[in-house]
Order: sequence, then C-alpha cells, then structure tokens
Amino acid sequence: MKWLRYRIGDQEGFGTIDGDEIRVHAGSMFEHPRETGIRLRLSEITWLTPCVPSKMLALWNNFNALAEKNGWMKPPEPLYFIKAPNSFAAHGQQIVPPPSYDGRVAYEGELAIVIGRLTKCVSPEEADSHIFGYTCANDVTALELIQRDPTFPQWVRAKSFDTFGVFGPAIETDFDPATACVRTRVGGRERQNYALSDMMFGPRELVSRISQDMTLLPGDVILCGTSLGVMPMKPGSAVEVEIDGIGVLANTYG
Amino acid sequence: MKWLRYRIGDQEGFGTIDGDEIRVHAGSMFEHPRETGIRLRLSEITWLTPCVPSKMLALWNNFNALAEKNGWMKPPEPLYFIKAPNSFAAHGQQIVPPPSYDGRVAYEGELAIVIGRLTKCVSPEEADSHIFGYTCANDVTALELIQRDPTFPQWVRAKSFDTFGVFGPAIETDFDPATACVRTRVGGRERQNYALSDMMFGPRELVSRISQDMTLLPGDVILCGTSLGVMPMKPGSAVEVEIDGIGVLANTYG
Repeated sequence: MKWLRYRIGDQEGFGTIDGDEIRVHAGSMFEHPRETGIRLRLSEITWLTPCVPSKMLALWNNFNALAEKNGWMKPPEPLYFIKAPNSFAAHGQQIVPPPSYDGRVAYEGELAIVIGRLTKCVSPEEADSHIFGYTCANDVTALELIQRDPTFPQWVRAKSFDTFGVFGPAIETDFDPATACVRTRVGGRERQNYALSDMMFGPRELVSRISQDMTLLPGDVILCGTSLGVMPMKPGSAVEVEIDGIGVLANTYG
Repeated sequence: MKWLRYRIGDQEGFGTIDGDEIRVHAGSMFEHPRETGIRLRLSEITWLTPCVPSKMLALWNNFNALAEKNGWMKPPEPLYFIKAPNSFAAHGQQIVPPPSYDGRVAYEGELAIVIGRLTKCVSPEEADSHIFGYTCANDVTALELIQRDPTFPQWVRAKSFDTFGVFGPAIETDFDPATACVRTRVGGRERQNYALSDMMFGPRELVSRISQDMTLLPGDVILCGTSLGVMPMKPGSAVEVEIDGIGVLANTYG
C-alpha cells in the first residue's frame, strides 16, 4: 500500500493511492488510520512530504561498491549524520541553490526507511515490525562545504540547506529492500543504478543499531546512503530518483 | 520576563514566572500569548523544556580561551552540528547514561539562544528582533565517540543520545549576553566559570550567519558552545549550569 500526504487549496490530508485516486484517511497514518470514503484525483493535489519526521538520519559509506571505488574501509558500525527539518522537501518541489554557498551541489539517490512505532533498543529481528515502509530520497549535498574547514567536517550544514532533504513521493508498506535497485536520472540521463543488496548495513540492522543510541519515533526517516554515480547538478536540471516498487521522486534543481 | 513550560497531572501549559508562581498563558508563546488569569505554584509543577525546537544547533570552538588552551585556530565561520530532538531534556530531568556506550560522558555548560520568529537570511542588526530570549543548556557529550572512527567524526551521534540535550529552566527575554558568566557546578563544586564576552561569534552574528544556510523557526535553539572546564561526569552527579540573570539548570547524571 502507498501512503502520501497532500495539500489541496488550503487543506492538508493523507491517504492511500488507488490508481489515479487517493483514498482519503483520517486520524494518524501510523496508528489506526480510518478511511473516510472521500476520494481525490492525484492530478489535483500538491504533494507534501509523505510524513513529517522529528528527525532525518542519513548514512555515510554504506555501499560496498562506492567504498571500494574510493578506497574506504567497511566501518565497524553505521556512520550517520542528521539533515535538519528545514531541508525537508516533497516530490515536485524545487530544490533551491543556497544563497550562501556557490560551490557544487550534488544529488544522491537513496532508499529511505520510515519508522512506524516508538523504537528503542530493538533487535534486528524486532526491527521489521517497527518499519512502517520505504520511500525514495535525494540526499542533496553541498560538496565543497563538507571539508572546507580543516578542523571540523561540516556534514550537517552541507546536507541541511533549505530543500536539501527531498523524500517521497509516497511510502510503500509492501517492499523488499533485498531485491530492488535505485536509479537516478538527471535531465533524463541515467546517472545512478545500483542494487540495494550491496548495502553494508541493511534496514533491519540500521534500525536496530541506531535505536540503541536514539529513540526513533513514528515518521522518523533513515536514509540508507548512496552508491556510485553521484555528480553535481546544473541549475535547471530535472532530477528523478526511482526505486522499483516504490515510485519516482521528481524534482528540479534551481 | 521568564517563560517556562510545565506539566501538572496530565495537563501541559506555559506561562511566565512571577515570584514562586506561574502566570498561565494560552495561545502561542511566540505570537500574542494571552494571560488566562490562572496562577499555579512553581512547587507543584514538573518542568518541561521551555520550548519544543524543530532543531537544536550547537557550536564547536566558539570561545577564545578554550581555543587557545587546545591550540585551535579561530575558525573563519561558525562551525556547528545538530543535537537530535530525542535528546531534549528539561530542568530536573535525569540525564541517562547511554546503554550502547561505556566511555566517558561530559557536561558542557552553555548559553542557548531561543529564536522567536521565522528567520531567513537576516543581517546581524536584524537578528536581535528574531531572538526571543536566552536559556541555559548542558550540551552532554559522549567524549570518546566523536573520534572513535578515524574516517568520520561522529558529532551528531556523540551529542544526541536520549536526554543529552538539556536546556532550561526558563527563557529569559531581558538578557544581555555581553556581561554575563556561565558557571557549571558538579556535586556542588564549580568546574566552569567563563564570561560570555569571550565568544568568537556572538548571538547576533550566529543567528545572522546560520540563517543564511537554514531557515530558523520560532522555538529553534542555538547552543553557543562551551569554554574551559569540561570534564566527565560520574554516575549520581548533580550538575548545575547557572547563568546570571537567567537561572540554574539542575539535573542528575545516571
């Protein structure tokens, strides 16, 4: 099932996708949502981010192919940072070049895990029942900013400009990360195409490990990291992140 | 004026402190709060964090004395990370040793800026009117975690365990950061005592600079960084961060 959030006029709502329609629901997406009987056409809505995370965590160095190419060791534990909430942007929304940075800005197509329940110190076996579903993400990055200061890598800042945390279009609850691929297209040209099976720490392991450190809440999002093919975007570029079985997250940069 | 949030029974609310009482308010703390006429005794409430930030940013290397001692250069721009929302903890709340980390855990007494209005690309001159007030903070840190992985400093993780983002007790709206000191006591013994005038980037400058990168929202918090005297805490320690004119943020570790 695919869950989305939408705006129509000045009303916001959420529901499931049924062909070219939305079955509108009420209550909470994560706890006993009720179908209202109202249906909307997908063509008449503005897409919102499919949930409103209290935090978005994002992995660095989580794919073997990218690590091999860059000569990185496999880390003994997941390495992650945070993307600030002001960065959250939805399917169809413009990715805005930061006014305070004039270096290169790259796309990173990624799988995103969406948490469905309060999650604290769970085992990998328990983690599955805490994952609500999966969506696509574009972990937009100000490349030169990360290492600009020799004393302090600026991961959070380079990843948290307004509109740099793109995810959506919808959350798929029936998805097997073991078999799918992530494809990123820029201006219609495929730039990334990698198998999720190449992940070092898979979704169960990530949720379990991170939940030992931080309590995760319904709607929290973990971006699983990217693999080969990251490149800067030119202003005006159309960027699409597609994951088999989830959908296409489409945005324009600049 | 001092603003706080509280819980009493299963009711949450906010108001201003008047002697040993609270003048309860309704609406939004940041936009035309209305006094209700109801008064509560401070002795009967549980303190909550004085606001609910969408993000808590925190500075590294922002005091001259600490930089000198450690041989750090003054950075050309503010260097900051994020503390995740699960870390937020209030005055009086226990700081919990993380189950997944057995190294040293340090206090860091700090001044916290609380944003009062939507803040995007403001000048240092404009910044003052975007600052709602100031509170005390304890930027609790898992010391050995930051540099445990040689390839990726884990600032966010080391700073974001549950209850590691302590701030309060209340937000003082009439406060001059130029003249005050921060004092941190552990088990009654003073461990930090530094002047806020030693800051490299002061509050106006921080708000202005950070607002070029990220939109700040009412209730967002910026921790200004710490100075000399940071040390690990022993389980059972009482930790107090006091700032002249704001108050005392008191917690127990472990």
